[in-house]
Amino acid sequence: MSKMEVAERVPVAAVKGLIADALTAAGLPREDAATCARMMAEADLTGADAHGVFRLPQYVRRLKAGGFNARPNITVTKSAPATALVDGDNGMGHLVMSRAAETAIALARDMGVAWVGVRRSNHAGPAGLYAEMPAAAGMIGMYSAVANANHMAVWGGADSLLGTNPLAIGVPSGAGPVVLDMATTVVSYGTVKNYALQGKPMQPGWMVNTSTGEDIIDAKKSAEGLLLPIGGYKGSGLAIMLGLLAGPLNRAAFGRDVVDFNADDASETNTGHFIIALDIARFLPLADYKAEVDRHIAELKASQRLPGVDEIRMPGERRRQSREERARDGLPLSAALVVQLDKLAGELSVKPLSARS
Amino acid sequence: MSKMEVAERVPVAAVKGLIADALTAAGLPREDAATCARMMAEADLTGADAHGVFRLPQYVRRLKAGGFNARPNITVTKSAPATALVDGDNGMGHLVMSRAAETAIALARDMGVAWVGVRRSNHAGPAGLYAEMPAAAGMIGMYSAVANANHMAVWGGADSLLGTNPLAIGVPSGAGPVVLDMATTVVSYGTVKNYALQGKPMQPGWMVNTSTGEDIIDAKKSAEGLLLPIGGYKGSGLAIMLGLLAGPLNRAAFGRDVVDFNADDASETNTGHFIIALDIARFLPLADYKAEVDRHIAELKASQRLPGVDEIRMPGERRRQSREERARDGLPLSAALVVQLDKLAGELSVKPLSARS
Repeated sequence: MSKMEVAERVPVAAVKGLIADALTAAGLPREDAATCARMMAEADLTGADAHGVFRLPQYVRRLKAGGFNARPNITVTKSAPATALVDGDNGMGHLVMSRAAETAIALARDMGVAWVGVRRSNHAGPAGLYAEMPAAAGMIGMYSAVANANHMAVWGGADSLLGTNPLAIGVPSGAGPVVLDMATTVVSYGTVKNYALQGKPMQPGWMVNTSTGEDIIDAKKSAEGLLLPIGGYKGSGLAIMLGLLAGPLNRAAFGRDVVDFNADDASETNTGHFIIALDIARFLPLADYKAEVDRHIAELKASQRLPGVDEIRMPGERRRQSREERARDGLPLSAALVVQLDKLAGELSVKPLSARS
Repeated sequence: MSKMEVAERVPVAAVKGLIADALTAAGLPREDAATCARMMAEADLTGADAHGVFRLPQYVRRLKAGGFNARPNITVTKSAPATALVDGDNGMGHLVMSRAAETAIALARDMGVAWVGVRRSNHAGPAGLYAEMPAAAGMIGMYSAVANANHMAVWGGADSLLGTNPLAIGVPSGAGPVVLDMATTVVSYGTVKNYALQGKPMQPGWMVNTSTGEDIIDAKKSAEGLLLPIGGYKGSGLAIMLGLLAGPLNRAAFGRDVVDFNADDASETNTGHFIIALDIARFLPLADYKAEVDRHIAELKASQRLPGVDEIRMPGERRRQSREERARDGLPLSAALVVQLDKLAGELSVKPLSARS
């Protein structure tokens, strides 16, 4: 979503209602639609604008085209005392990953730690959502996935074989979960699109022209190249390793096998994820850990700043501020998105946003 | 170690012998000294020049100054069916982390996955060593640590509060373990020192001058600034999160509490690490996984290259090549290092390298 053209603030309850009704109309059981609505609205609340209601038209399109299974039989196979493999039966990623996260938390409660792999899932929104679930339960959460489109090459390469494969880590603190949610590319395509709209030059190191090997500065020329990884070969290596854990380990797609879900509404993506939950109380009392996290975060936050820097931001801070502000003032939706959502509501014969506020 | 002034190739057996004898002379039980020698030589073999025999003089100095406990009582507390906490009793990091890795592998064999935290440990060499141990046992390995000196600030900050806190991930493949070992900084201090020696300009984004906020290009001025994280706030956030998992979760040092072991030989560092082992066979047959890893690595390796790029390198490839070549031709030691090691051998009355080749 472009950050420039915010048309209006829409109460989160209205957005949640629209998502739930639209997904129900598109064939999901009402309870599943409500779960998706809750997770997607949470993405919007926490500032992950490209992962919330913005995706609704695409999700409905996939449901209609048969790309998602609206009535999946999600199965959980406990493969060892502390591990499980979830088969999502091509259901919506939010349903599949919620189930996986709940399984990980329950197993970790008994075993101290759990690793849950996921196959035959789909796009599940921002990584931070799933790292936060264990953190909200007093645990450490770690999550990754094979992204649903390849926008990056291996370091030195020119073939689009890797996704932005994100890594999210969540820990509890006195102020609530501290969540890092990072892509393995320097910037997202969303940022590139925003720069193109604004005519702003991109920075060197963001994108490479695959024909010339040179940096792309003009964002309007983004189609000539690919996103670059953080730290060169490091980010490329990290995307590969996370991909090998989230994909092939679960017999899910990776590399050449990834289906670009932006270009194809009908094919099953066989999306893979993994989530780790660790029970902090097995190491020290939860309150002691939270106090230490609070102390370290406060020390880092209050540390000496570089010239010209107004404020040091900690992981998850923007996320928490956004959540507070948007829960109070509503979600900032662009005019273009509201038009799209109204059209969708019309097609599905559900109440438009304007009738819900 | 400077890569410029390689004086000679020394057989790895000679280096291993020197390390074992020197550590024994410095007070370690012979068996423990042999374990450290094996791990340190492995670091040299795999190309981690700053983490092998190069560290021997410092380690001996710490043993003499009381900074290391030469006869630690390392304890393993199984805190849940799939977790354990290792207390290193301030012993050498290699001993403590070997014990932790073995514990993780054994627990994962029974439970599917294991998370082992470590406290009161010390510098344990390159992260890759410990991610490789589960991989060599047919498992996934994941390792991190709080580095033993702070060379980085939080993103936007000017206080040296974070280390290069590395992340290493290892997976098995047909060709042997594929190991990613990455620091959360763009470059290491070793690279900066090399550039200073060679008078080569550094690249923007490597180091920041903490007074001016500008990039440091002249490596000789490195004392005026700090290393920068990969991906800006992302690498900074990753260093923080890994630190909160390896440090405070195990009641080990992080942030302001880190002891700079380059500046202080006598104080206990309370170094924290963690290691995760995951048994692949609980997800799919090991041979199937290795075959898939081989296929994906081959596809990435053979993919289209950017103009001017001769070869695409995969994680762990340089490591494997270095191991082969150095096992055959010996370890490349700089003249300066050989002089140091001869001096050390004299002080400890053990056979010098020249008498071992």
